[in-house]
Amino acid sequence: MQKIIILIHCEDQKGIIAAVTDFIVRVEGNIIYIDQHVDFEQNVFFMRLECELTNPNSNLAAIKNVFEQSIAVDFKMAWEIQPKEKKLKMALFVSKYDHCLFDILGRYSAGEFNIEIPLIVSNHQDLKAVANRFDIPFYYIPFTKDIKEEGEKQQMELLQKHEIDFIVLARYMQIITPNLISLYENKIINIHHSFLPAFPGAKPYHSAFKRGVKIIGATSHYVTEQLDEGPIIEQDITRVSHINSIDDFIMKGRDLERIVLARAIKLHAERKTMVYDNKTVVFS
Amino acid sequence: MQKIIILIHCEDQKGIIAAVTDFIVRVEGNIIYIDQHVDFEQNVFFMRLECELTNPNSNLAAIKNVFEQSIAVDFKMAWEIQPKEKKLKMALFVSKYDHCLFDILGRYSAGEFNIEIPLIVSNHQDLKAVANRFDIPFYYIPFTKDIKEEGEKQQMELLQKHEIDFIVLARYMQIITPNLISLYENKIINIHHSFLPAFPGAKPYHSAFKRGVKIIGATSHYVTEQLDEGPIIEQDITRVSHINSIDDFIMKGRDLERIVLARAIKLHAERKTMVYDNKTVVFS
Amino acid sequence: MQKIIILIHCEDQKGIIAAVTDFIVRVEGNIIYIDQHVDFEQNVFFMRLECELTNPNSNLAAIKNVFEQSIAVDFKMAWEIQPKEKKLKMALFVSKYDHCLFDILGRYSAGEFNIEIPLIVSNHQDLKAVANRFDIPFYYIPFTKDIKEEGEKQQMELLQKHEIDFIVLARYMQIITPNLISLYENKIINIHHSFLPAFPGAKPYHSAFKRGVKIIGATSHYVTEQLDEGPIIEQDITRVSHINSIDDFIMKGRDLERIVLARAIKLHAERKTMVYDNKTVVFS
Amino acid sequence: MQKIIILIHCEDQKGIIAAVTDFIVRVEGNIIYIDQHVDFEQNVFFMRLECELTNPNSNLAAIKNVFEQSIAVDFKMAWEIQPKEKKLKMALFVSKYDHCLFDILGRYSAGEFNIEIPLIVSNHQDLKAVANRFDIPFYYIPFTKDIKEEGEKQQMELLQKHEIDFIVLARYMQIITPNLISLYENKIINIHHSFLPAFPGAKPYHSAFKRGVKIIGATSHYVTEQLDEGPIIEQDITRVSHINSIDDFIMKGRDLERIVLARAIKLHAERKTMVYDNKTVVFS
Repeated sequence: MQKIIILIHCEDQKGIIAAVTDFIVRVEGNIIYIDQHVDFEQNVFFMRLECELTNPNSNLAAIKNVFEQSIAVDFKMAWEIQPKEKKLKMALFVSKYDHCLFDILGRYSAGEFNIEIPLIVSNHQDLKAVANRFDIPFYYIPFTKDIKEEGEKQQMELLQKHEIDFIVLARYMQIITPNLISLYENKIINIHHSFLPAFPGAKPYHSAFKRGVKIIGATSHYVTEQLDEGPIIEQDITRVSHINSIDDFIMKGRDLERIVLARAIKLHAERKTMVYDNKTVVFS
Repeated sequence: MQKIIILIHCEDQKGIIAAVTDFIVRVEGNIIYIDQHVDFEQNVFFMRLECELTNPNSNLAAIKNVFEQSIAVDFKMAWEIQPKEKKLKMALFVSKYDHCLFDILGRYSAGEFNIEIPLIVSNHQDLKAVANRFDIPFYYIPFTKDIKEEGEKQQMELLQKHEIDFIVLARYMQIITPNLISLYENKIINIHHSFLPAFPGAKPYHSAFKRGVKIIGATSHYVTEQLDEGPIIEQDITRVSHINSIDDFIMKGRDLERIVLARAIKLHAERKTMVYDNKTVVFS
Repeated sequence: MQKIIILIHCEDQKGIIAAVTDFIVRVEGNIIYIDQHVDFEQNVFFMRLECELTNPNSNLAAIKNVFEQSIAVDFKMAWEIQPKEKKLKMALFVSKYDHCLFDILGRYSAGEFNIEIPLIVSNHQDLKAVANRFDIPFYYIPFTKDIKEEGEKQQMELLQKHEIDFIVLARYMQIITPNLISLYENKIINIHHSFLPAFPGAKPYHSAFKRGVKIIGATSHYVTEQLDEGPIIEQDITRVSHINSIDDFIMKGRDLERIVLARAIKLHAERKTMVYDNKTVVFS
Repeated sequence: MQKIIILIHCEDQKGIIAAVTDFIVRVEGNIIYIDQHVDFEQNVFFMRLECELTNPNSNLAAIKNVFEQSIAVDFKMAWEIQPKEKKLKMALFVSKYDHCLFDILGRYSAGEFNIEIPLIVSNHQDLKAVANRFDIPFYYIPFTKDIKEEGEKQQMELLQKHEIDFIVLARYMQIITPNLISLYENKIINIHHSFLPAFPGAKPYHSAFKRGVKIIGATSHYVTEQLDEGPIIEQDITRVSHINSIDDFIMKGRDLERIVLARAIKLHAERKTMVYDNKTVVFS
């Protein structure tokens, strides 16, 4: 049976859930999963459904059309309906650090992510060998101040050519250009190696060490033009103590970065995140 | 506006959610919170809703009546509808350990629980002073093999007289009688000082120490006739190491017991737990 | 047998440990616990020992004297030697929040802390009833801009009269005066309701909510003149999600504040903390 | 400067630490790290030191000899002294699951472990491609009841030929033979996919799901003849809830298995573990 995922958000109003669930019944769908959230401060309603279409002759385009014409209009919804099995295409941007790259490619090879990775982009040659090891095409695009425009152009072309759905910055040490950000709004995932909003910017482990914190963290977030201030998708932490050096912080942090980034990729790939007001709704 | 909580479980069928949400619309309710769960192995459907009744003339008894006559029958539901503000009455059973008692009464005094505690029952006199300190009536009911029947009878009378809704065993070191268990099915909460199913029964910290575990835990669960095998409500853990003695395990465990029991009380008081197949559904 | 605790810090040099352990042998001590730490960046050595004196005629004053004359001089040590059973005297400062107060007094009554609490000081009358419940003298000292000097004077007199060793701010909502801070350097423990250095200052739960973090925290630290920037003693965290309101953050945070403050009190009372360079060494 | 690691255990006696630290001074060593533990129940003393030898002409064999002749005899110590930079040789045993294998090889390639991996042994052909990807020799040794002796013989020969120091079972689904266990006592590390001692043996995630636990775990331990009862090195846990299926348990568990096994490998490789009385001392 075909399975579909429905994501909805709109102003909170009476009767939304009843209208949506009634719609599912009408198109011969069976709800497998439903979750909703209301932000009472902003008065916004969010919903995620997974349904199986019990009629083998169901036509997804027709269903979308009905939805569009009826309740989407009635409730002024922002919405999407997608087949569950569709694999999103993900581009990996890396620089020199390899731990997140190894982790993502290991998970990818082991079949943990419902995605395709058509390419890896880097501003350095260092990780070409890792890409080769996993048989993923690797594109070296230098990216310095002088050649930024050229670099951005090459990136854009590659992304377009490979029909990339979202981008993951696996410790990519370059600022993403506003053009790229606006093209992939809420579709570029970064991993920052601190417990944001503590220690944004460069060298967070050094700052954490200097401050004498007892816990360090990592944060995955969607990239916006404000550095390290985009909507947070996932965070996790680990304990440190006075016996740990900066190198220990970095080593312990690597495990955090891996896990937190992998979770964010999985959530995004399964369309479990919605963004509103610079925050995320993350369905379980 | 009056707020109500609706709990439902029944065999999983098509159209339940649509029917329920449609019902809410008909009785002029506004859904504030909806969560549902389907156990696909057992084919059982669970749902919890919070609604506010927008019509000031809404009559709860009438609403229940309509629900009973219509969808409850249609879907063969087990269900309850309750006013959200209703405070459940909780009896505390204790023996000699005071850390959970202090914690519960401190939280109770600080207004953290939406409950009433009309009485504390104990098989020892030791904690009478603590009960007095918080002005809660304390009943000493000795409970040894020879006088078990008499003890049970006294307990039953007290519980009935005070219209007790649920019982919390805050390190009560006596087996609960089958009569009491059947009277309060899924309404007696115990705290066990291990990460169940590891180390059931007596002296779990000693067993954990002997085994050399690196993490210890605590488990709150509903009491059934099988010792420490009832449906688990909540668990939590903390790290230990070779430097910790059994006394350290006990001391660290106290914090776990406090927190895990407090969370279970809160979940039960807010009617966020449902029991099925010796497991709990815990709504968030 | 008498037990003593020895704390040492000095410039890192060759032979310190050998000299100290040799000293213990000479005074007929048996080392129960030894832990040391070297800050290689600052080149500072820290050590904590617990010893039992096997000779019943051991004289602590004499031992201190020998230590002072010999290795303390040789290695230019800052040091203290204290009987392990000595209970430190702790003053509790509170305002209106009662959850930390209830927790501390519950633990105190249950014998969890090796301390004495001779008094509670507050700038409000609200928590007098709680203090009475636990039979601890309660002093109401108003503390506004106009009467700050008078308030500080009263505080100082009380602390001196009761020979207070350290102060705990259990959600005391007033700035501590520089005079008091310098009198109790590294001896005033505050609990801040965020994961410092994120969200210092007022209303951290509101800021955390606005930022959309997935984890909130609490931090206990020694008070310095820089608000929320003193040496961190302990931190802990808990997960939150989009479904949690600010009120949920506050409620979940209460548990963190309780636990993190209780741990800091215990560490300080057992002389397991040393401060250097605005950081703590916390021995296990 | 050459760095050495010293591990000691013996009956607890007065003066051990003084004697050891004095020895270090005599051989012109500078203690970088010292940690010790006394098991007061068993009256056993454990110690781990890292020293740098400040004299460039220091001779490790000579130092060992002096140690052996003097304090090792005096205190009846079990001990070892090793150069810190020595890389242990590790054999990886796998079957069909690839997630731990990918993780270990990714970390190995990224330089996280101070080890060498000369070979991978498997009773199935499935993971040969992964081994090839990382250029590690892969040996297929079938291992069924009938050919157990032949299989064991082949394993033994390979381990001997490659001078293997320790073995890691990365979800190797075969019982290790007593011969191999006795040859590699406390040198075979297994990862079990439950929070031991809960759910030993086969299919722990299924059992955990059935029991309705709220937390699942993973445990790395040294292999002994008693299945899943060897000394525990490390454990960790993650939360689950009623919404998680057995497949979710398995997926979440994979992350635990990876992390917990990687930590155990690191601890063993850095000689931070000591085994006594079926428990581990794990130095930090």
